[in-house]
Amino acid sequence: MITPYFLENFWGDKNNGFDVLYHNMKHGQISSKELSEFIRERATIEEAYSRSMTKLAKTASNCSQLGTFAPVWDVFKQSTEKLGACHMELVRKLQELIKEVQKYVEEQAKNHKKTKEEVASTLEAVQTIQSVSQALQKSKENYISKTLEQERMRKEGATQRDLDKAGLKVKKATETYKSYVEKYATAKTEFEQRMTETAQKFQGIEEEHVLRIQEIIHSYCQSVEETHIQIGEVQEEFVKNMENTSVESLIQKLAESKGTGKERPGPIEFEECNVSIATEGLNEFFSLFPFSFLLLCREHIEYNFTLISLISSLYNNSFRMLVL
Amino acid sequence: MITPYFLENFWGDKNNGFDVLYHNMKHGQISSKELSEFIRERATIEEAYSRSMTKLAKTASNCSQLGTFAPVWDVFKQSTEKLGACHMELVRKLQELIKEVQKYVEEQAKNHKKTKEEVASTLEAVQTIQSVSQALQKSKENYISKTLEQERMRKEGATQRDLDKAGLKVKKATETYKSYVEKYATAKTEFEQRMTETAQKFQGIEEEHVLRIQEIIHSYCQSVEETHIQIGEVQEEFVKNMENTSVESLIQKLAESKGTGKERPGPIEFEECNVSIATEGLNEFFSLFPFSFLLLCREHIEYNFTLISLISSLYNNSFRMLVL
Repeated sequence: MITPYFLENFWGDKNNGFDVLYHNMKHGQISSKELSEFIRERATIEEAYSRSMTKLAKTASNCSQLGTFAPVWDVFKQSTEKLGACHMELVRKLQELIKEVQKYVEEQAKNHKKTKEEVASTLEAVQTIQSVSQALQKSKENYISKTLEQERMRKEGATQRDLDKAGLKVKKATETYKSYVEKYATAKTEFEQRMTETAQKFQGIEEEHVLRIQEIIHSYCQSVEETHIQIGEVQEEFVKNMENTSVESLIQKLAESKGTGKERPGPIEFEECNVSIATEGLNEFFSLFPFSFLLLCREHIEYNFTLISLISSLYNNSFRMLVL
Repeated sequence: MITPYFLENFWGDKNNGFDVLYHNMKHGQISSKELSEFIRERATIEEAYSRSMTKLAKTASNCSQLGTFAPVWDVFKQSTEKLGACHMELVRKLQELIKEVQKYVEEQAKNHKKTKEEVASTLEAVQTIQSVSQALQKSKENYISKTLEQERMRKEGATQRDLDKAGLKVKKATETYKSYVEKYATAKTEFEQRMTETAQKFQGIEEEHVLRIQEIIHSYCQSVEETHIQIGEVQEEFVKNMENTSVESLIQKLAESKGTGKERPGPIEFEECNVSIATEGLNEFFSLFPFSFLLLCREHIEYNFTLISLISSLYNNSFRMLVL
């Protein structure tokens, strides 16, 4: 149970406490809207950041796929993409939260409208005590003034007729003054009773409002914290991947993907041309083609130097490759 | 000691390994520049985020300073400002890192230029073995073709003169072929020796490059991690401050700052006008003014109703307040 601060602190001689408390309640609506606006702005910032990160990830994937460093860009790309996704997830959560806040804003407006009706009689009591107080003060002043005037006339030796007239005025002023003293007592009782109830009601509304706002802020914090943890994990994974990418593994990968061969140039000896083997090879070569085709071109081909170059290759056992 | 991958994998029958390794080294420069560009882009994103946060903090400080919620905006403002500062600190660190990367890019360019000169003789050896291989192949083909031609002429019963001519051609082709076999042996030895040294040199350069890049990435990670920790602290502080902002403390603060008074309206009784006291009070009042002034206005004032209202207030002990 919270101390009844509102009940204790909103009295005072002008009886303006009601007005201050009523406007404080209305400020609650401004606060809710401002909070919603703050979260929306944060979401916008996170979205822009997320989009920039996704763009940066694309930059990474467009980076040179040549050279030893190429596989590292993949690590950068993945990590940056994940970072963008974390912030987008926060955007999604914040947007959900904004919906909740807006729901509360509407609820709050309805409640305030209802409360305004409920406290209408208090407002009336405030206006009554304020106007009765003023009227009481005036009637008192009038009563004194009339009394003093009567006294002055007496001192100055006014006629009995004038003194009677002045006496009548004093009597009337006294009656008015007394009636306001009575009215004030009634207004005071009414005001005190209404104001006591209403101050408690306003504090109740305020407590509930602050609790709701605190819940929203708690939810906001939770989303931000979850994102923070996720970002930490992405970062950790990035570091781990980088640690796993050793100099040796990068050098090895390059050698595997871009290697030109493990065979060093072999020795080449002078090879004498064995005519019979060369001719036999030629016959073997022609036996692969239809007879009619061979009839047409054998004679011509036999003396063709280009073909002779081919035949010389037979020597190097590359015959099958050439035919296929 | 890393396995000599480059020495093992960049041979092959076209002897193109040198070319691939040389271009791989040059790609190292592209990678360094791309990494520098990546970090610069990240810094730009962080800066935009930081500026947005600072702007958001201003939004928070412009939020309603009325109502129970007002003190909470201060917590939002401070936290958001700090969050912006964390990201700006990261920007500063990344900018420092970019300077380092740029220094390395320049260093690397110089080293590559120097290396290009150092491996010039290897490039020459590559070109020699490639051209000698081709020439050897051609001379061999020529030798076979000449030998076969001689054989064909013999079969077809060519003249002795033509056979002698063909024999001379075979002799010349044989000599050329043999000379290329020798040249090839020399080129092969030279190429193998140079290529062995150069492949090792290229691997050394590559290892050093990857190590430098890894150092830069390590530094990048460290900055990002430090910022992550700082953001976590800011967030934690925000949560703590929110937890310390209890509903009761907010209600109390509002009551203290906007309270209208603790005094309930007092009872007001009818007060009879004591003429002698009222007149005495009037004299006391005039004694406060200079005599000359009083001479001018006393008579007039005495009958003035406005003043009489003032006098009536003397009755309520508010005399001093009125005079002051």
